[in-house]
Order: sequence, then C-alpha cells, then structure tokens
Amino acid sequence: MIGSSPSGGETKSMSIGQKSVEIAHLLWDVREKRPLVHNLTNYVTANDCANALLAVGASPVMADELDEASDIAALADAVVINIGTLNARTVLSMFAAGKKAASLGRPVILDPVGAGASRLRTGTAVRLTREIPLAVIRGNVSEIKALLGGVGTTRGVDADERDLSADGLGGVAAAARALALRTGAVVAVTGSTDILTDGSRTLAVRNGHPFMSRITGSGCMLSAVTGAFCGAAPGRVFEAAAAALCMMGLAGEQAAERTAGENAGTGSFRTYLIDSLSLMDEAALAGGMKLERFA
Amino acid sequence: MIGSSPSGGETKSMSIGQKSVEIAHLLWDVREKRPLVHNLTNYVTANDCANALLAVGASPVMADELDEASDIAALADAVVINIGTLNARTVLSMFAAGKKAASLGRPVILDPVGAGASRLRTGTAVRLTREIPLAVIRGNVSEIKALLGGVGTTRGVDADERDLSADGLGGVAAAARALALRTGAVVAVTGSTDILTDGSRTLAVRNGHPFMSRITGSGCMLSAVTGAFCGAAPGRVFEAAAAALCMMGLAGEQAAERTAGENAGTGSFRTYLIDSLSLMDEAALAGGMKLERFA
Amino acid sequence: MIGSSPSGGETKSMSIGQKSVEIAHLLWDVREKRPLVHNLTNYVTANDCANALLAVGASPVMADELDEASDIAALADAVVINIGTLNARTVLSMFAAGKKAASLGRPVILDPVGAGASRLRTGTAVRLTREIPLAVIRGNVSEIKALLGGVGTTRGVDADERDLSADGLGGVAAAARALALRTGAVVAVTGSTDILTDGSRTLAVRNGHPFMSRITGSGCMLSAVTGAFCGAAPGRVFEAAAAALCMMGLAGEQAAERTAGENAGTGSFRTYLIDSLSLMDEAALAGGMKLERFA
Repeated sequence: MIGSSPSGGETKSMSIGQKSVEIAHLLWDVREKRPLVHNLTNYVTANDCANALLAVGASPVMADELDEASDIAALADAVVINIGTLNARTVLSMFAAGKKAASLGRPVILDPVGAGASRLRTGTAVRLTREIPLAVIRGNVSEIKALLGGVGTTRGVDADERDLSADGLGGVAAAARALALRTGAVVAVTGSTDILTDGSRTLAVRNGHPFMSRITGSGCMLSAVTGAFCGAAPGRVFEAAAAALCMMGLAGEQAAERTAGENAGTGSFRTYLIDSLSLMDEAALAGGMKLERFA
Repeated sequence: MIGSSPSGGETKSMSIGQKSVEIAHLLWDVREKRPLVHNLTNYVTANDCANALLAVGASPVMADELDEASDIAALADAVVINIGTLNARTVLSMFAAGKKAASLGRPVILDPVGAGASRLRTGTAVRLTREIPLAVIRGNVSEIKALLGGVGTTRGVDADERDLSADGLGGVAAAARALALRTGAVVAVTGSTDILTDGSRTLAVRNGHPFMSRITGSGCMLSAVTGAFCGAAPGRVFEAAAAALCMMGLAGEQAAERTAGENAGTGSFRTYLIDSLSLMDEAALAGGMKLERFA
Repeated sequence: MIGSSPSGGETKSMSIGQKSVEIAHLLWDVREKRPLVHNLTNYVTANDCANALLAVGASPVMADELDEASDIAALADAVVINIGTLNARTVLSMFAAGKKAASLGRPVILDPVGAGASRLRTGTAVRLTREIPLAVIRGNVSEIKALLGGVGTTRGVDADERDLSADGLGGVAAAARALALRTGAVVAVTGSTDILTDGSRTLAVRNGHPFMSRITGSGCMLSAVTGAFCGAAPGRVFEAAAAALCMMGLAGEQAAERTAGENAGTGSFRTYLIDSLSLMDEAALAGGMKLERFA
C-alpha cells in the first residue's frame, strides 16, 4: 500500500487507496463474466496456466493448430500468446489467433518467454509486437530489453537480475515506457518489484515473494491471469493488468507464508499458490495490494 | 445408492446393490492386470492423466507420432483418444492407433474435448466415431450434442450448463442414447449428474463434486481411467465405464471433503483427487457408489 | 551407506564415506553455479522436470524447435534428451542440440524413454548413442537392454521387473557395463537398486522408494537432475550422476515417509518429492546416501 511507501504523500495515498478498491473490484468482474481465455502456450506450464485461470474464475482453452486458431479466438474474450516452447507450426497459429482477436476488439496478451535467448524467439516476439495490436506485453527485464532491440543478456527463460541491478528500477521503467510507446501496449515488467506502464502512467507493484522464481510457471500464470482480467474488462486493460500483477503477487506472499509455516518446499508452494488464487476475494486483494505510482 | 433414490423399489435396489459390488470388483481387476493404456492426448492434462492412471493401478504410455502409433497401440490393453490439443500430425496418429487397437479387439475410448467449438474439433470427432469402432465415448453434454450434429453451444472446452438446463436430464439421456445407437459405443455424459448408456440400458451416476469443474483435467482423467477399466475388462465395457465414473466421482467427493476441512483451495483439491484415486479400494468404491437405473 | 552393506570392509567403508561427502558437495556446486539445463523432453513430465531442476538449484529451459535448438544448447551448461513423446520434428532438434553441446564440451544426457517399445524409439535412441558423444545414459533395465540390441521386453514406458529378476543385479550391471564400454557414456540403470558404471567403476545405489514408480516423472526428473549435476561439474560426470541418483532416491524416501505419516496418496507424494529436493542440503545428502561399490 502507498501508506507504507516513503514516497507517498497523503493525497496520493488516498487516490491510490480508492484506485485499489476499484482495481480489486475487477476480480468480481472476472468471477461474474467468467471470461473464456484462449491460450497459445507452452507445454511446460500449460496445466499451471489452466488451473490458475480456473482458480481466478476464468475459463481456459488451449488450442494451437492453425486450422482452428481463429475459430477459437473468435469465441474467446481474450487471447494469450506465450512463446515458451514455440515452433514453426504454432507460431502461425499465434499470428492467426492474435489477429482475429484484435480484429474483434478483444485484448491480446503477449508473454515473450526467452526473447533474447535465440534469434527465433527474439524475432518471433518482435514480429508479434509489430503485426498484432497488443493489449499487454508481460515479461521479465531481459525479455523486455530484447524486444527493444537492446543487447539483452537473456540466459534461458529466467530473468537476469544483472539486467536489473545494472540500471535500477528507473532503467526498467524507462525500457518499459519505451516499449509501451512503440507498441501501444501496456507493458508489465516483473522482477522483485514489478513495473506497469502504458507509456504515460507508470505503477510499481511490490507484491510477490522470491519463492515465485523457484517454481516454473509463475510468469506464465501471471500472463494467463492478465488475460482473464483483460477479458473481463477489455476497456480497462491498464487496470486489469494491475489487478493481475497484484493478485498473483499477493497469492505468492500468502503461499510463501503457508509454506514457511509448514517448513515445506517448492512443491507445496506451487500447490498453495493455486489455492490462494482460488480463495482470494476482492476485499483481500484490495487490502493486500502493494501498488504505488512510480515517478 | 439406489436406496436413497426415490424411484428405487426393493427388488431394483438389491439388484443394483449386487451390481455395485460387481462393478467395484473391476478395480481389483485393474490392479491385478495393470493394463497398459495408450493415450493420444493433450499437453495440458497429460501429466494428470498419467498420474491418475498410475493411481488406479494402470500403466500409462503417451505416444502420438504416426511412425509409432500403431506399434504402441498393439502393445496396449486400451487406447484413449483425447482431442484436447489436436493438430494435423496427431490426428493421423489417433486414427492409426485407434484402428490398430480396434482391429485387435482392444477397447478404444474417445474424449471429444471441445467438439462444437471449432470445425476442426467437431469434424475430427465425428470422423473418429465413424471410422473407429469405439468402446466408449466420454464427453460433456455440449460435446455429445456436437457429435450428434445438433447445434451445440459449446463454449471452449467446458460444459455449457445451459445445454443441460434446457433439456433436463431426460434430454441428456435421449442424446446419449441416440449417439450410442448411432455409433455402437457406450456413451458417458458427465455433468452434475452423469448419464451412462449403451442405447438400451441407461444409468445415472450421482457421484462427484462441483470442485471437479474448478480444476483442469477432471474430464480427461475420467476418460483415461475409463481406458484403464476397459483395458482390464474388455468384454464388459459398460460396467467398466460405470466403475470409472463412480470411482472418479467418489474420489472427487473425498478430495472435496478433505479440501473443505482444511479451508484449502483448488490446488490442494487437485492433489487430493489423485490421493483418493490411489488410496481407494473396492470396498470403499462399492460403498460410496451412487449409481441408479435411469428410466 | 557402505557400513550397512554386508560386503563392506573397513577400508572400503572409509573410502566410500569420504567419497559420499565429496559427491554430496556437488550439490553445493549446483546451487552456486545454477547451471542452465536445456531439456528436449516430453510434454507429460516437462513441468515436473522444470520444477525438479529449480528445486535442486538449476535453471531449466525447454526448447525443441530445430530453428533454435543449437542456439539454446550453446547457452546451456548441459543438454538433456528425453524421447518420451518424440516426433519427427523434435528428433531433429535432439540431434542438433546434442551435437552442438557435445562440440562445446558440455555434457549431454540421454533418457531413452520406452526404447524397446517401438522401432521408432529404439532406432532413435540407438542413433543418438552412436552420433552424439553422451556423458550419461539413464534408463530402466528394459531400455538399457533395448539399446544393447537385446530382445528387451519393454512394456510401455515402465521398467519390466521380469527383466531384472531374470538376470539379477549382476546381469543388470553387466548390461550397463557393456553399454558404457560401447558408447563411452556413464550408464545409470534405475530399479529397486540402481547401478551406475563407466565401464570400469561400478556403484550400486540403494536409495529410493517404491512410491517413486507410482507417479509419472520420477525417471524423467532424475535424468533432468543428472543434467543439473553434470552441468555444474562437467569434468566429473560419474560423480555427478551418482549425486543425482542418491539425491533423487533420498528425496523419494523422505517424501514417502511424509506421505505415509499422513496416510496420504500419490498426489501428495509427488508434491513432497519436489519439496524434499528443494529442502535438501549437502549434509543431509551425504548422511542419507546409500552408495556402495558393486563388484
């Protein structure tokens, strides 16, 4: 909460406080509308993504064959493109589904997993940002920099904290804003602190827990859940992305507390993360959000 | 149990009671024979299906490349075809494996995931019912209607409860019987109450819990487990499918009770569902079955 | 520990005791170096493998498209090839990634899942052993025999204990040595007792628990974790493979004890297995290792 932030004055705090309630209310919209989220995603975390979507109240469908990609996208309230285990066949489907959804005014979310790690990933991700009007791009700092054409230091699919420490959070925000301005998408950069920007407004989200990087799928689930919120509130994708970031991070905090309390490990943490998503309500989300404006 | 059913008379009750013991005994057959179940399935719930098969006592193998599909099918006691994330390559393998198994007299189970949601899915599923002599078709009401060529309202891969409420359970049973008569397969339609029919005999199964629709894979696991029971008792696929429906539903009830007792969420429920499958014995299955004749 | 082995004399015991500490210390290397492990693997257990790798302290990347296979392999500290759900496209990528890694002196691990069950699997696995200088081959006795060209009795993807009981552990060790000598790889054969050999030295590992064969992925996770240890200590792959075998088996023992203590089932066991991997330290590994020389 802004109240706990050294940079937060009284007025700003109240304004963000009201915003928190408004943003948390989007969880109600997800559970009321039960948006259908079409995922073109990887086989490593597809199960996690489906369970995370169901846990927040959305309905998942995974379909990556060109012959049905636009049919399914046309039924969906949002499309999430995750290039985690991309191949030539599924890349074609990603473009077809993304274009179809965008043409119908539905939000398309991109998770450029591993951009920077191979020419195929970087090139595909960059083309997706150019050819599809994206609602949200969600990645770690290495991936976001790779999309900007900078010399990223992506090492596999995990964020390289060196990228962060080199520039500080200000550098991350600058990169995110540049990508938002270039693509027209809201950009969410996750790390120990998350940055969310549409190019003009920028927020920092301080929810989350280091355990989240010790299981696979935290980032993929966040992108999927961002699709759920955007599908429920397609006209308010900035707020929807903020809600997803806060909800996922807060669920991580709750799951970490439960894991630590039981002296359990990362297997239990993964289970409890889904538990927390499924048990969270708007009041808990509004109360636990650590959201602040970032200059 | 029939005893709790308002429609159940004394004689009918005893007959179903004896039937319950007989059906539950098939679990012993699964654990004794340890049938090899060849799954041509989706990447979202493949892990769940493999663990569910191992939990009931079967042995899973996943293989979807044409070059080995019939080799693997020839080794297997049953083949389960699940079109959840079908593509042109794997569809060819589904036909090859299904035909091979059928030619050897082995049961083939079809789970037409998302039939009705795209022409590819509906068309593929219909062709599978026409070209392969299926032992069991297991789907939700939207999918079953799509196979009948009716105007389904399939929305993604989840059942549309509107389809159910429009017609009532009688309408579901009528559709299931029509599909059973057209295909020669036993048809299992899952929902808040499950319907099982071979076109002449019709049963209703009232096991299960709403939590099952809040995780991914409940339906896929049921289809896989149906393959396990059919593989163990290939001459009695109607009873085998009944056993699978009851076992999966009862495991869902047990897992839901444990989840609720711990104030846990859907992540824990998923874990406990597999726990229950692995811990269940014939006596518990016979005692917990909620099976009745459906007029 | 050798102390509990009837065949262990005093000197031998001390030597293995020191060896245990040395081998366990490799876990520190994994956590210090955090090796990037490139997995070309199946979609059934990919999530388990990724979480197991993160739990031991490594960083996983899954990538199986030819267009990026060697790019990703070039970034990785080890490559793990698992043919569990191989297809024509991914087989090409396995060769490309394996050759690239080997050319850079990085360890390549092969898990010949289901070799013996189809000509495609056996043929592919044999070609991989011939064309790529492998660091470690990890399989069950049926798979190892299939690689040797013997008439294996592979039944699906699970070990056939008949293969073991027919020959005894001596027969398994002889087969493992023969494959090690033919390929130049360290060979790990898992079963109720594991055998590890480089053709001259042979060890038996008595860690593990029968529950491990009641979930999917135990073998795949072991192969992935072997990749983590080899990636951290590429010059000592024999010791690295021993560490992986002991760690995985010990985690299985711990998870089984916790599962039994809670009267839980295989779903919980799977979660606790990852928990144990994530919580284990070098001291626990050194103390719990059941490693002995095998004549």
